[in-house]
Amino acid sequence: MRITGVDITPVAFADPPLLNAVGVHQPYALRAIVQVRTDSGYTGLGETYADRAHLERLRLVADAVTGLDVFALNAMFTAAARALAGQTGSDGHGLTGMITESGTVDRVFSPFEVACLDIQGKALGRPVSDLLGGAVRHAVPFSAYLFYKWDGHPGSEPDEWGAALDPDGIVAQARKMVDGYGFTAIKLKGGVFAPDLEVEAVRALREAFPETPLRLDPNAAWTPQTSIKVAHALDGVLEYLEDPTPDIPGMAEVAREAPMPLATNMCVVSFDHLKPAVLADAVGVVLSDHHYWGGLHRSKLLSGICDTFGMGLSMHSNSHLGISLAAMVHLAAATPNLTYACDTHWPWKTEDLVEPGVLSFVDGSVAVPTTPGLGVELDTDALARLHEQYLRCGIRDRDDTAYMQTIDPTYERRKPRW
Amino acid sequence: MRITGVDITPVAFADPPLLNAVGVHQPYALRAIVQVRTDSGYTGLGETYADRAHLERLRLVADAVTGLDVFALNAMFTAAARALAGQTGSDGHGLTGMITESGTVDRVFSPFEVACLDIQGKALGRPVSDLLGGAVRHAVPFSAYLFYKWDGHPGSEPDEWGAALDPDGIVAQARKMVDGYGFTAIKLKGGVFAPDLEVEAVRALREAFPETPLRLDPNAAWTPQTSIKVAHALDGVLEYLEDPTPDIPGMAEVAREAPMPLATNMCVVSFDHLKPAVLADAVGVVLSDHHYWGGLHRSKLLSGICDTFGMGLSMHSNSHLGISLAAMVHLAAATPNLTYACDTHWPWKTEDLVEPGVLSFVDGSVAVPTTPGLGVELDTDALARLHEQYLRCGIRDRDDTAYMQTIDPTYERRKPRW
Ligand SMILES: [Mg+2]
Ligand SMILES: [Mg+2]
Repeated sequence: MRITGVDITPVAFADPPLLNAVGVHQPYALRAIVQVRTDSGYTGLGETYADRAHLERLRLVADAVTGLDVFALNAMFTAAARALAGQTGSDGHGLTGMITESGTVDRVFSPFEVACLDIQGKALGRPVSDLLGGAVRHAVPFSAYLFYKWDGHPGSEPDEWGAALDPDGIVAQARKMVDGYGFTAIKLKGGVFAPDLEVEAVRALREAFPETPLRLDPNAAWTPQTSIKVAHALDGVLEYLEDPTPDIPGMAEVAREAPMPLATNMCVVSFDHLKPAVLADAVGVVLSDHHYWGGLHRSKLLSGICDTFGMGLSMHSNSHLGISLAAMVHLAAATPNLTYACDTHWPWKTEDLVEPGVLSFVDGSVAVPTTPGLGVELDTDALARLHEQYLRCGIRDRDDTAYMQTIDPTYERRKPRW
Repeated sequence: MRITGVDITPVAFADPPLLNAVGVHQPYALRAIVQVRTDSGYTGLGETYADRAHLERLRLVADAVTGLDVFALNAMFTAAARALAGQTGSDGHGLTGMITESGTVDRVFSPFEVACLDIQGKALGRPVSDLLGGAVRHAVPFSAYLFYKWDGHPGSEPDEWGAALDPDGIVAQARKMVDGYGFTAIKLKGGVFAPDLEVEAVRALREAFPETPLRLDPNAAWTPQTSIKVAHALDGVLEYLEDPTPDIPGMAEVAREAPMPLATNMCVVSFDHLKPAVLADAVGVVLSDHHYWGGLHRSKLLSGICDTFGMGLSMHSNSHLGISLAAMVHLAAATPNLTYACDTHWPWKTEDLVEPGVLSFVDGSVAVPTTPGLGVELDTDALARLHEQYLRCGIRDRDDTAYMQTIDPTYERRKPRW
């Protein structure tokens, strides 16, 4: 069952003005849809980032893996590494830390691996979760992912969520999201306002949702000293504090004082970072993300490492579409030690390109598809529409800071800011 | 594809009087053959230890996994852990260190996992290596595994290998084994004679085989001081020194001084041991062994951990039959960072229970089977014969020390001895 070709289609979908530590989400989020074709007639789906440099790397790897068997994942990884030798870089948007050469390979390899597992599953008549050791849960719990936000992009109509710029706005957003999706955990993206104001918002959430696990993620906007102060202020309130401060030594300094576990998707974002993080005892919870941990099998490796080295495991999200959600659900279902509700940006989007009906939220959870492969089918009209939107929108790289600066020319990116 | 039943058959096969740090191999080595039956008609094969306590645990787990789907490996592991809750123990023969509760689960779960992968592969028409990411080598290199030995068991005829009790005997044994199998690496099981004599034997091997990678494994027979002396004496001669001294702190002490990497299958034998070993920087190479690392997928996890934490990877062997060799070959073929030749006791046995013709050594390597599943078939007549031999031989637990004491009543087990 050999790969005969790969189609890589960049798409754009509307995204609200979600604020974070480096600026604000642009009007469109970008993704690339990877379709792997085989001589068996089966096609597999993957979804990944679509920044320009990443698209170029995807094309290099597409050529490198063409001709390989869809079960030859070890050889495919080696081929990807060879095709990308010497390539490193940062993510541009500054939210996932430094990317090493090995991290770059994992990031580019990932959608090919997911697509091959989709094909394997279809050929075998088995859901992807079965290729990962089998689902240990029928549905995967996600957390509500709250953002400070404006009521709409400047110059556009307000979106359905309205503004959230203070504790009341955040609590109202949480109520709408929990009512709509049934989430049983809540995460607030912070790093936007002064730490005291964000502490106040978390306390307001605690009052409004007395039993719901809460998280706060300022994306490394704080110094270690500020982080320790916030950690003490939210003692007993947060299930974990996510990336309060930059880098492994800074996180280790905070971890020594913080009463709750520290989680990360910034200082541990590739296999290279795990040994230094373990030696420094820097993090209590790793947020996995198959998009940059090299696909589903290598995310399972990460989960085994967390289990072995006494770290908890949660799941990170960027703005994504249905192919990614399906992959996240299969992976999470087949990962016994993934005991935290996963992150997802899902409620923030208004369009998709998979056939509807498969992925839906009930009580905050998504049922694991049981049909062969990922269990989702591409809506080719929607793919064409979102690709048109990509061509039209003019955005070619995610850059929350530059977009913010078009609105507020005095805005500066600073890490840490407080 | 559900498990409808499991047959567990203890077998015994003739084993020469191989000397080691705790005594001498008994006249028969024991194994248990695990046959997993399914409602699909496919049967899968596993091979494991057959000591009494282990056989009892296998039966508990056989009951616990019956009714599960052969792809539900996560659920199967949980069921095994539940069935074995609270069970810990040592291996009796003293060659693989303390076994924790989690290590016990991995040991008992392993043959079921291998058998399920055999079934998965057969049902999918794919070799087991494809279920592990695909073979990255067509043949797996093994090392010659030399032992000090008597010419035969007391009261029996000499075996075809004759005695090896000094450097000349070891070199002669190496020549015969290398001539017969083509091995391109050589390991000497030590811990039998005073360290100076074993150093002399290794030097004689170096002289006789100037280019061949050499290893020495005294099974923790030495103090750290003795180990450091030997390590310096064999500087530039050994590719690694295996388990010179007991326990992680002792190994760490030696590792700080030794010019070559230290390898282990004694102080790191379960996932529990990895974090302490990494924190102490105790070992440079882990010898994996799917029989106690929880099967093939969890051995891949171990390999990923070694890769991530900068440790090398080799493969350990006990006396085994063809089902185990097939599993070892598939695993090794699908493990890119397994860069050392694997151990095997294969040349020491004179009988087997798989249909001949699949597993053979060419230039020291075994070609990876490409037929579905493990690629080996059970010879049911041979199974019955070796089971009869088990019933007749009277051995129910491996105990090299007790057997030695029947021959030399003054023999004592001591660790470290020198
Ligand atoms: Mg984060
Ligand atoms: Mg050993």
